[in-house]
Amino acid sequence: MPQLRKDLTSRTWVIIASERGKRPHDFKVATDEKKGEGNCPFCPGHEQETPPEVLAMGRGERTADTPGWSVRVVPNKFPALSGQSDEPSFGDGPLVQKNGIGAHEVIVESADHNSTFGTHSQEQMEQILSAMISRVKQLRADERLQYVQLFKNAGRIAGASLEHTHCQLVATPIIPPKAQEELQCGHFYYEQHNRCVWCDIINKAHEHGRIVEASAHFAVLCPFASRVPYQVLILPSRHDGEFDSLTGEEIKDLAGILKRLVRRLEIAFNFPPYNLQWHISPLQGPGQYDQYFHWHLELLPRLTIAAGFELGSGIYINPTAPELAAQELREVKIDATTGI
Amino acid sequence: MPQLRKDLTSRTWVIIASERGKRPHDFKVATDEKKGEGNCPFCPGHEQETPPEVLAMGRGERTADTPGWSVRVVPNKFPALSGQSDEPSFGDGPLVQKNGIGAHEVIVESADHNSTFGTHSQEQMEQILSAMISRVKQLRADERLQYVQLFKNAGRIAGASLEHTHCQLVATPIIPPKAQEELQCGHFYYEQHNRCVWCDIINKAHEHGRIVEASAHFAVLCPFASRVPYQVLILPSRHDGEFDSLTGEEIKDLAGILKRLVRRLEIAFNFPPYNLQWHISPLQGPGQYDQYFHWHLELLPRLTIAAGFELGSGIYINPTAPELAAQELREVKIDATTGI
Repeated sequence: MPQLRKDLTSRTWVIIASERGKRPHDFKVATDEKKGEGNCPFCPGHEQETPPEVLAMGRGERTADTPGWSVRVVPNKFPALSGQSDEPSFGDGPLVQKNGIGAHEVIVESADHNSTFGTHSQEQMEQILSAMISRVKQLRADERLQYVQLFKNAGRIAGASLEHTHCQLVATPIIPPKAQEELQCGHFYYEQHNRCVWCDIINKAHEHGRIVEASAHFAVLCPFASRVPYQVLILPSRHDGEFDSLTGEEIKDLAGILKRLVRRLEIAFNFPPYNLQWHISPLQGPGQYDQYFHWHLELLPRLTIAAGFELGSGIYINPTAPELAAQELREVKIDATTGI
Repeated sequence: MPQLRKDLTSRTWVIIASERGKRPHDFKVATDEKKGEGNCPFCPGHEQETPPEVLAMGRGERTADTPGWSVRVVPNKFPALSGQSDEPSFGDGPLVQKNGIGAHEVIVESADHNSTFGTHSQEQMEQILSAMISRVKQLRADERLQYVQLFKNAGRIAGASLEHTHCQLVATPIIPPKAQEELQCGHFYYEQHNRCVWCDIINKAHEHGRIVEASAHFAVLCPFASRVPYQVLILPSRHDGEFDSLTGEEIKDLAGILKRLVRRLEIAFNFPPYNLQWHISPLQGPGQYDQYFHWHLELLPRLTIAAGFELGSGIYINPTAPELAAQELREVKIDATTGI
């Protein structure tokens, strides 16, 4: 029988069509054929083809915008938002517009064109996370910016237009609708229960067998009201609102657990397309959301298509119960020492 | 310069990257290759391959579940929700579940496997709309049902799994999140302005050249904060909350304007994939929403991919300004008499 489950953190409803019980081999996965590194603007030696870098990580000294980096952050060549905008803000009945100041950057994750979140070395993954944290801290200093949306599109179906492994960030002069909604939902739950909804989500996932992996500082789980098959949340086990306050030890731990999660998906689905989103606190008003907001990562494999019903109603039909998804992902064999 | 526009009916924000100014030929359109009618369960003569029909339209008498129909409504063979459910309702901290009673039906639009919303005859289109209205009225009689989501997925990219032209409906025991949001936004706007937000949306579209076509009873427009290129709204010009209260004359008018809109898209984009959603009043509490809700249709062509940024933030990047989209659609030449 289908179950109608509610996601309290987004007010979304989900129909879990668990009798379909779709497992990894039941999905047609659109794995991209790699075109290779010819003329890739993100490969070493092509640094002049991107706007000047805003950050680079690596060993030893080097001149900006030359090879020798291990992680490189550059403004997007076709930015959705940028540091200057002369568009006016106004409100005219149903028309509302805001000056579109912001930033749009690409985090080139590795000099290796073909590496992935699942196959990067542990050290490489730590550098990527450190670069992101550094950018969030820097952007926070610009008081016009309210939020940084960090995300990764893996595979063409998931919206990646360049295949060289990369993440992106967009900084906005507003708190985005989804972030607003999570803050409101978190606040509402806190007022009702005097507890953090995400802390309770972790506890219930332990009780109900929806944990994929738990490490010293993080929990990886399939949420009760998963909108899509094999949806995964990664949450710090300790209640924490700020992604950029991670300690060195926590970064190490997150790098490992994130790498292993993506590796599980790569093995189970042969490199499926997916979107990975960071849900962090707004940039301004430090401490304001700490009591009831708990930062986290959300990974959405692109195995199904959101169609008219989902777009119209905001209710999702998911043919794989998250209890089954968590079990399947737990059982994927990865090498414990290398994570590959 | 990118413009940051707000959709007051959904609280969504949109970045209009108008300097990209993408026109129809700039999009790679995934037009499906037709496989044809061999073994199609929706074609005449295959009536036994679907669950028994709940409604059929056509001329003259016929036995149920035999050929001779022109529009046929059947329960979905793999329903997302159905008339019986023994799943319990409960709330346990962050876990909330509701008994999943409902209905899931397919409206087979025509006996002709290959016809489309753009190529159906005027009379065929009127019958499809009449069948939908009849189903909404019938489902309204079941007091456990709170809403009917009517929708059409056209093309595989838009989620259509069978190519024979059809629409669907899902009746739910809850008011879906998107419908709730529209009701709340409509109510809020009404309290602020003492006017209907959708009436104002029509007026502003006239003022700013975003009307595609206006008929005696309907307006077709590209909204100010279009989330995707060539997004279109169809609204009754007269303020009206109830889709199923349309008069015979209004059904005729809607059939013509909807057919011509889809025909414009078919010509401009060579049969693009799209999703079409009905946004109507909840089934129960008649008259309750009339003051501030105004039913409408939303058409979303699937020309771009919603990726990590959109999924994470709820902000959409649209490379085609709706002012340009409306102009392009207006200028498509269709035959005024046949609509083809």
